[in-house]
Amino acid sequence: MTNQLNSISLANAVSQLSKLPGIGEKTALRLALHLLRQDKETAIALGQSIIDMRNNVTYCSRCHNISESEICEICSDHRRDEKTICVVETIKDVLTIESTREFKGLYHVIGGVISPLDGISPSDLEIESLIKRVEQEGIREVILALNPTIQGDTTNYYIFRKLAPYDVEISILARGLSIGNELEYTDELTLGRSIQNRIPFSETFHKDE
Amino acid sequence: MTNQLNSISLANAVSQLSKLPGIGEKTALRLALHLLRQDKETAIALGQSIIDMRNNVTYCSRCHNISESEICEICSDHRRDEKTICVVETIKDVLTIESTREFKGLYHVIGGVISPLDGISPSDLEIESLIKRVEQEGIREVILALNPTIQGDTTNYYIFRKLAPYDVEISILARGLSIGNELEYTDELTLGRSIQNRIPFSETFHKDE
Repeated sequence: MTNQLNSISLANAVSQLSKLPGIGEKTALRLALHLLRQDKETAIALGQSIIDMRNNVTYCSRCHNISESEICEICSDHRRDEKTICVVETIKDVLTIESTREFKGLYHVIGGVISPLDGISPSDLEIESLIKRVEQEGIREVILALNPTIQGDTTNYYIFRKLAPYDVEISILARGLSIGNELEYTDELTLGRSIQNRIPFSETFHKDE
Repeated sequence: MTNQLNSISLANAVSQLSKLPGIGEKTALRLALHLLRQDKETAIALGQSIIDMRNNVTYCSRCHNISESEICEICSDHRRDEKTICVVETIKDVLTIESTREFKGLYHVIGGVISPLDGISPSDLEIESLIKRVEQEGIREVILALNPTIQGDTTNYYIFRKLAPYDVEISILARGLSIGNELEYTDELTLGRSIQNRIPFSETFHKDE
């Protein structure tokens, strides 16, 4: 359909937009025509924001989170607990954990999980740099917050073994019932884990403070 | 979630992307992170293509189709039949009809249909300019190709009445079975219309040439 487009600029924008994940040629055309109906400023602001983002955003050399400077805002915030590192797979996981406002330490984005089938080995991930941080920054606790999948568990275990020589506490996110979910719809594995790891009821009072 | 974004440029791109129709904040974030994982060139090419499109694309002053010049490519193509105008609602309809390769005349994009409930009256549409073209360009046939809806039919009739004083043939797209569709799933109205407008079987041989 786009070869009927009466404008090279439009055809080009459609072809660029349709490279985005989940956006086919028809949706790309719909988006482009929408942008043509908008104010010139609105459409140009979108294009410019993408260019600016790609030019400005880089990765924090310490935790590999996104950043606009050498060291990201989280790493350079001295109010945070610099002795605790939360290990996550992706940048998105940093955002998700930050949105809980429950964690005040630093992060380390390893960039994925070990998955031999997908050709991802430990050396493809930021694990060496994590070990180095533990070594050099006097880290007291490493919280493993990878996704609760087989690959996540494998990676957790790999990191756990790698950190064994160091005097650092290694913890993992609790597995259990989702708040608001019904028992009936919780899978057996999670339910089983939540029975094993049951906690004294009195502890829950303190946690909600 | 975006207020946790560690980068103003990223937050800005996400907010711009989420203004697009059908793209929420989560999808916008997914798209932005995807662009950050791409080559710098790829991401910047997308942003630039949107800016270029909005700067270059304008509307043909004759048929109101999109164009990169005063008069669009279709209108300035002298191999086309300049005495036949196909009236459509939107630019997208031009693309759809062009993709059939069955029409060699010119277009006139009226920009919508008469719909008092939505506050769209004939003066909001490019109908006056259509009448003017019929008058000045010696048009022989006007093909009404609006969508087969009540509003489309109303607008067809309005145009038909407006063109009554002129010596011009006015035709409308055939209503009938969709090719490849089963009779059982065709709605009664369309099926009824296709019985009324049945054509000699022998004619179909010529049409398929």
